[in-house]
Amino acid sequence: MLEVKTPAEVLALIPKEFRPLGEAETVSCTEAAGRVLAENITAEEYVPDFDRSTVDGYACRAADTFGCSDAIPAVLNVAGEVLMGQGADFTLPRGGCAYVPTGGAIPRGADCAVMIEYTEDYGDGTVGILKPGAPGMNLIFRGDDVCPGKAILPAGRVLTPQDIGALAAIGRTMVTVARKLRVGVISTGDELVPPDETPKPGQVRDVNTPLLSAMLRDFGAKAVSYGIIADDEDLLRRKVRQATGECDAVILSGGSSVGVKDAACRIIEEIGELLLHGIAVKPGKPTILGKAGNKPLIGLPGHPAAACLVAQLFVLPLLGRLMGRTQEDFAVTAFLTESVGANHGREQITACRLRREGERLLAAPIRSKSGLITQLAGADGYFIIERDCEGLPKGAQVKVFLY
Amino acid sequence: MLEVKTPAEVLALIPKEFRPLGEAETVSCTEAAGRVLAENITAEEYVPDFDRSTVDGYACRAADTFGCSDAIPAVLNVAGEVLMGQGADFTLPRGGCAYVPTGGAIPRGADCAVMIEYTEDYGDGTVGILKPGAPGMNLIFRGDDVCPGKAILPAGRVLTPQDIGALAAIGRTMVTVARKLRVGVISTGDELVPPDETPKPGQVRDVNTPLLSAMLRDFGAKAVSYGIIADDEDLLRRKVRQATGECDAVILSGGSSVGVKDAACRIIEEIGELLLHGIAVKPGKPTILGKAGNKPLIGLPGHPAAACLVAQLFVLPLLGRLMGRTQEDFAVTAFLTESVGANHGREQITACRLRREGERLLAAPIRSKSGLITQLAGADGYFIIERDCEGLPKGAQVKVFLY
Repeated sequence: MLEVKTPAEVLALIPKEFRPLGEAETVSCTEAAGRVLAENITAEEYVPDFDRSTVDGYACRAADTFGCSDAIPAVLNVAGEVLMGQGADFTLPRGGCAYVPTGGAIPRGADCAVMIEYTEDYGDGTVGILKPGAPGMNLIFRGDDVCPGKAILPAGRVLTPQDIGALAAIGRTMVTVARKLRVGVISTGDELVPPDETPKPGQVRDVNTPLLSAMLRDFGAKAVSYGIIADDEDLLRRKVRQATGECDAVILSGGSSVGVKDAACRIIEEIGELLLHGIAVKPGKPTILGKAGNKPLIGLPGHPAAACLVAQLFVLPLLGRLMGRTQEDFAVTAFLTESVGANHGREQITACRLRREGERLLAAPIRSKSGLITQLAGADGYFIIERDCEGLPKGAQVKVFLY
Repeated sequence: MLEVKTPAEVLALIPKEFRPLGEAETVSCTEAAGRVLAENITAEEYVPDFDRSTVDGYACRAADTFGCSDAIPAVLNVAGEVLMGQGADFTLPRGGCAYVPTGGAIPRGADCAVMIEYTEDYGDGTVGILKPGAPGMNLIFRGDDVCPGKAILPAGRVLTPQDIGALAAIGRTMVTVARKLRVGVISTGDELVPPDETPKPGQVRDVNTPLLSAMLRDFGAKAVSYGIIADDEDLLRRKVRQATGECDAVILSGGSSVGVKDAACRIIEEIGELLLHGIAVKPGKPTILGKAGNKPLIGLPGHPAAACLVAQLFVLPLLGRLMGRTQEDFAVTAFLTESVGANHGREQITACRLRREGERLLAAPIRSKSGLITQLAGADGYFIIERDCEGLPKGAQVKVFLY
């Protein structure tokens, strides 16, 4: 019999028992935001590839402008003009200057750019500089941004639109990302009917299939539904075997009766290895985890609010591990709108709604007697109460992980 | 000549000048996560629709168990068994009990459920109850979760997977969401080449088209690229007119030279109305905003890092307004890894990288001399320094808005 594990033990078990699949695909950068990067990106060229001005004005030698002022301008000879998008293939003579637009290339010999506001065009081929320059002023030098070999993005990062911009800047239009996981979703329970059916007495709608499927898609995985399975061990065994064959991971949920839980454990032990039977967390205690090779086989509680919190806390990190995702989720700080009790001797996960009040973010804990819709609809995230904490008062600061 | 506006003035101008399109489409709930809800969702039925047990055990009348204990069990007659997924269409006689599984229906007359752990089956049609019940114990009553007419989700919310679960629970498989916006993206500048080309001297790659397109897609809009337009006012006029005709909003970027900025203003004034020329924010000052009817025409700075921050701060809220999105983004609290200077007399937006250190989140500000890739790649979000603040010391607490 396996012991009930703490949440920390479960999270520590994931990298020990499961390894990244290491399977990648190359996609167009236009499709890559939200995917897990599967290569280390390093620069292969200089950006910028030429010295550029950051202002509209005149490129010149700083030494030629030292000591100038409004009253006594430095008078320089206009030696050329740089056009946007053109090189500046000439050398500035001593005492010379050249007009450059913002972002334009700087001629050889120039070591600063003076903003046009601090210059005066005398119209006779000379320009007055009213404010002294300094070497490097208003310039970006070749390679100031990146040089060949510089690390740009690490494998394992979830690509943001900003990362896509950076990839474009170094000329990457294709990128290697982790293959999308296929995750099988099986709901079990004699009481379940599909959401589009009207439940008869004693029946309820299957919420876990649409809920988990939406979570999986949101996480960048493909959800494959194997439908609603009645509490029948043989049927469940066939479906779990089929899903294990066709997918990278399988999530069962439901089977709240003792018989079905036992059946799920037996089936996992037949197909692979049972790693975990029970997590010391409320809600979510009756969670089971096994593996067939490197494929996780996960049994979630039947109650959708519990299934959702356990999926968020353990299943997504586990799938992230398979995808080689190294990124953590960051929590926001908020203050409780009312007290929350917790005297269960196990960690408690509480869903909440967030709203802003002036500078503070307020978290309204969602409390309901096994409420299903109440706990899901409109929830913005969840916070965790430690196992040795007996509750939190109104106004207490909590870390809220966003959905 | 329009005055430069503060960021707060710009955000206040959005709801005054633009109204929600009010155009919706009905989509399957399986595709609805991330979309903006366009209807108020209210419950139409009771959930649950019957009184249910939250435990495996025996449904009974609490009064029949008062005073019982391990030593003196209350002996009740087994009057029936409730099967999962079936109704409980019988009435419990006084002194009777019925087995119910977790989630099972409760027979009429029962007012509590006793966990199976606190019962003993004598095998003769009677069961001993070892712990007294109390009315309502371990039950969820009909409508405890929601009743007909209860507000479930408000229009304007961005649907989460959890919301999709709640919709399934009330039998909704289709939902009305705001139509996806079409947003035209135009990059201008003689120096720009597409990302898959190698820039010649004086040229750089167009980063804003892929960057803004990825941001727009991430926000649930369709990005329509009109390509790279050279600094040619007539050509730009034709493209802006075409994009305005075909899209719900148009974003120009680049044109850092004074002539092109003026051209963009002239074009917007010809097509519609110029609302804004310059925002007191660094980076992002040379931002322009106009409208053609209810269609925003936006001119962003050419520098990708500036374009990205301005888009995040003003363009996404503006597009959200068109979609009827009411939701705000929440910020995480982090502590600066180094000091950041800011003495510009205008608000400063600084991109940063986040990492966790124990319980604290650390924000490493990204500082670089107009660095483009450096400011984009690997950035996790941004924070704002108020205009009257001269800088923040190492260790200062900042609110980081996540990308």
